[in-house]
Amino acid sequence: MSSWIFGPIKALHLSAKEAAVERQQQLTKPLGALGRLEELAIDLAAMQGKVPALSAPFICIFAADHGIAATGVSAFPQEVTGQMVANFASGGAAISVLAKTLQAPFEIVNLGTVGKTNFPGVKNSVIAAGTANMLETAAMTSEQCEQALKAGQTSLLHAKSHGCELFIGGDMGIGNTTSATVLAAALCGESVTELTGPGTGLDDSGIARKIEIIEKVMQRHLEPNLDPLTLLARVGGFEIAALVGSYISAAQQGITILVDGFICTAAAMVAVAIAPESRNWMIFSHGSAEPGHQLMLKHLQAKPLLDLQMRLGEGSGAAICVPLLQMACKLHAQMATFAEAAVAGKLDEN
Amino acid sequence: MSSWIFGPIKALHLSAKEAAVERQQQLTKPLGALGRLEELAIDLAAMQGKVPALSAPFICIFAADHGIAATGVSAFPQEVTGQMVANFASGGAAISVLAKTLQAPFEIVNLGTVGKTNFPGVKNSVIAAGTANMLETAAMTSEQCEQALKAGQTSLLHAKSHGCELFIGGDMGIGNTTSATVLAAALCGESVTELTGPGTGLDDSGIARKIEIIEKVMQRHLEPNLDPLTLLARVGGFEIAALVGSYISAAQQGITILVDGFICTAAAMVAVAIAPESRNWMIFSHGSAEPGHQLMLKHLQAKPLLDLQMRLGEGSGAAICVPLLQMACKLHAQMATFAEAAVAGKLDEN
Repeated sequence: MSSWIFGPIKALHLSAKEAAVERQQQLTKPLGALGRLEELAIDLAAMQGKVPALSAPFICIFAADHGIAATGVSAFPQEVTGQMVANFASGGAAISVLAKTLQAPFEIVNLGTVGKTNFPGVKNSVIAAGTANMLETAAMTSEQCEQALKAGQTSLLHAKSHGCELFIGGDMGIGNTTSATVLAAALCGESVTELTGPGTGLDDSGIARKIEIIEKVMQRHLEPNLDPLTLLARVGGFEIAALVGSYISAAQQGITILVDGFICTAAAMVAVAIAPESRNWMIFSHGSAEPGHQLMLKHLQAKPLLDLQMRLGEGSGAAICVPLLQMACKLHAQMATFAEAAVAGKLDEN
Repeated sequence: MSSWIFGPIKALHLSAKEAAVERQQQLTKPLGALGRLEELAIDLAAMQGKVPALSAPFICIFAADHGIAATGVSAFPQEVTGQMVANFASGGAAISVLAKTLQAPFEIVNLGTVGKTNFPGVKNSVIAAGTANMLETAAMTSEQCEQALKAGQTSLLHAKSHGCELFIGGDMGIGNTTSATVLAAALCGESVTELTGPGTGLDDSGIARKIEIIEKVMQRHLEPNLDPLTLLARVGGFEIAALVGSYISAAQQGITILVDGFICTAAAMVAVAIAPESRNWMIFSHGSAEPGHQLMLKHLQAKPLLDLQMRLGEGSGAAICVPLLQMACKLHAQMATFAEAAVAGKLDEN
């Protein structure tokens, strides 16, 4: 494993954080009345080292197929991964519409679709035609896993060259809630039954079959004190490993990460297991309708901003949150203080 | 009472709603995967009678003082109402920053501040120097209440003349959580103890005093089968009555109402008590940190979109929601269908 993944994580700017806390107390509103928008402004100040401001995010979708899909763990056929990659590029997917609305630079990276691999407007970083079936063998070799992590770093550095202050990673891969559930179960110790959900739309018997398969995968691959990179190679996916690489790279570069839903939170758990301080650079956007997501968020001590019962992936829940972050910054920077506006303070403070 | 308030409420467009439901099933995502954004698009289609689209909202802040403030029910002094009106107009308040960010037409209406009443950039619709102290007498005469309702209608019709498709009303008035709590207790039958909260920041003994005052107000003014307009005049406020008038007028004109927090929800309860079908035109933006708000929302069978622990008023929680509504519309209108994008559907549907 190349050593970049263990490189130092950028420290937060504590003096900028203190200045932001102080400013929030002076703005013309009862203290705390903007709730989580105040916390967001303070957290972003700590990351940016200044009065926070956010232009458009950089959105990067990582796509790949999963060998485990052959076991029928998804409600959709495997060819949908490649078809959706084309749909991302042609502007018809949810994240395409949201990226356009946010005027966000939008990169699509194909790490390994089954069948067609070249798509106009999509970066071809194909490692293999999907991962191996992890019921039979490790999903990735350690070299493949390293290649996928590196692809994530490459996209993050590309985002940085665009002046990115906020990075959104997204996922596409039929079968990937199965990988994400195995990773979550291994890293947070919750039961597979609690963590497993319908994904794109399994019915109850489909979920029962998925739980059975996940338990077999865990029996095959898990062992005590498994290091997170080995775990990732055995039961992850190319797109999940790329997300992990992009998150760790963002934390090394000091770029804010806006984490999407179930798949991205599994990647965030792996990133934090590898580099605990990368957690400092993560904002969690939404609570997914996928039931296990709440347990994963709890493990990361994360309170997501939104709960809109979304469960699409693609980075869509994170994209939806961007205007909230931008408004939190504008309120922090542009509101008048009590002194500036000559507004009287609280009675017990006079 | 002039009869306009009892005029017919515009009916929803059921065929546009059905078309929206149908379209959501065809877009390239698992059905339901956009969660509440799908419901929003469908609700907006039913209101607009077409594929929904939202430009900037019209934001109107109603401000007035409350006689009950003399009893010490607020953590802030009464002069803050007028000072904040000036701050709205000069761009320093939270809602001023949000209106600018949303490029929203922004109207400020002074219905009756104590002391200074003329402010540059503020519409002077002063009825009196605040309401009367409702511990001693009715807060408003029925003529004053009618005047305030009419002011709300006037602002809504002004919004309509701007081509408004989405109306946000906001409130400012030191003491107004007391009025709102009395209205809520009268209309939803929950206990005053459950409904009463800190407002701008009372401590526990302040809340206990506020509960005592609210109970005295209720003993003085409530009686069985009180009609909602009489209730409003007795225990409301000028700005709350203006909100009621604007909401009923919006529902009559077929304009979507985005309801803010505690004060606006109390106004919505009064509007629905007067004109039950006005509920069809309301979208509830956020759950306030003011504890009684959840009970009021339950009474209205409303699930707010956001829970960011905000408790500022001014329409700020509603303004924060606008990009979500706009994105829901864009996703609905611009995403490709499975057929257009040649993406395969669910396996059990093939």
